[in-house]
Amino acid sequence: MEIFIEPIGKLINEFSKLPGVGKKTAQRYAYKVIAMSEGEAREFSEAILEAKRRVRFCKVCGNFTEEEICSVCRSRDSSVICVVKEPKDVVALEKLHEFKGVYHVLHGVIDPMNGVGPNDIRIRELVTRIDGNVKEVIMATNPDVEGEATALYIAKLLKPLGVKVTRIAHGVPVGSELEYADEMTLARAMKDRKEL
Amino acid sequence: MEIFIEPIGKLINEFSKLPGVGKKTAQRYAYKVIAMSEGEAREFSEAILEAKRRVRFCKVCGNFTEEEICSVCRSRDSSVICVVKEPKDVVALEKLHEFKGVYHVLHGVIDPMNGVGPNDIRIRELVTRIDGNVKEVIMATNPDVEGEATALYIAKLLKPLGVKVTRIAHGVPVGSELEYADEMTLARAMKDRKEL
Repeated sequence: MEIFIEPIGKLINEFSKLPGVGKKTAQRYAYKVIAMSEGEAREFSEAILEAKRRVRFCKVCGNFTEEEICSVCRSRDSSVICVVKEPKDVVALEKLHEFKGVYHVLHGVIDPMNGVGPNDIRIRELVTRIDGNVKEVIMATNPDVEGEATALYIAKLLKPLGVKVTRIAHGVPVGSELEYADEMTLARAMKDRKEL
Repeated sequence: MEIFIEPIGKLINEFSKLPGVGKKTAQRYAYKVIAMSEGEAREFSEAILEAKRRVRFCKVCGNFTEEEICSVCRSRDSSVICVVKEPKDVVALEKLHEFKGVYHVLHGVIDPMNGVGPNDIRIRELVTRIDGNVKEVIMATNPDVEGEATALYIAKLLKPLGVKVTRIAHGVPVGSELEYADEMTLARAMKDRKEL
């Protein structure tokens, strides 16, 4: 006997494709689906198709949108561009409700070890956005090796165009304990200290 | 601006209904779906509908099946019935490839605190299965309060029918360390010790 009958095995297999989902978790998800009502299962199934069908990338910033140009690009201060690696980073920043400018999603970072060069991410598209109107470009890529390298690369590229390029601050996370900060972060926090 | 555009928000909402999935995880899953190819998304979507459409419960044991009566009930030794709480427990036991008998899925355990009485789970169906052919009923409900109570309740019910009722052993898990065993388990392991 196969442990799972075919339709369950298939569904488990599909759930296993989601990031961080192993066989056991996928099984729990599959059982949940089977326990759903017909209508709930249909809604779930349709939400997947709909998302795939309706979501595309904003022609300007590269973030998810349903239109040609996303609502952020259409309505916000385009003189400040915040550059991020992925759409999920936009979500993280939007949750702050602080930033009033627009975004630029690179869809990756420069990562030679994995064969990702400057031409493989949306750097060219960023350069074409720099005109007299743009006053500042904030590099908000992740504070890891690739994110730093990408930030530096783009800064070098944009500065000759006469635009101010800034980098988000590094330091000890708010609410954390010094004892548990890694050495790199602590060193950076000391070096970048500010007068009170 | 809404942080998520509608089709993404909807998909995140659907994924959030899965057990143990919070907003952040649901978001990661949704992004993964958007990054899928059209075909992959369709397969995923269809697997959900298919599972819901094709999977039903075996009339005899209550486990998932595509037929009237599942392949285990049709082909295995029906003189030994192993009673479990849920279909996933059958999967756990089947993985051992040791048990040659059949199962009985209760679809719950007696849990008065949550309003689940003996009539709310498949106990009646189990009783009707006990005939001259059945030699042993193994109670393999979870070793927690409700599982124990349910095992005892069913044992009391079945013994007058002249059938042997057994309970899976309790003790320290194989490969674990005594130091980390909880007191209840350790006490049980001492009490149920066996001669070597």
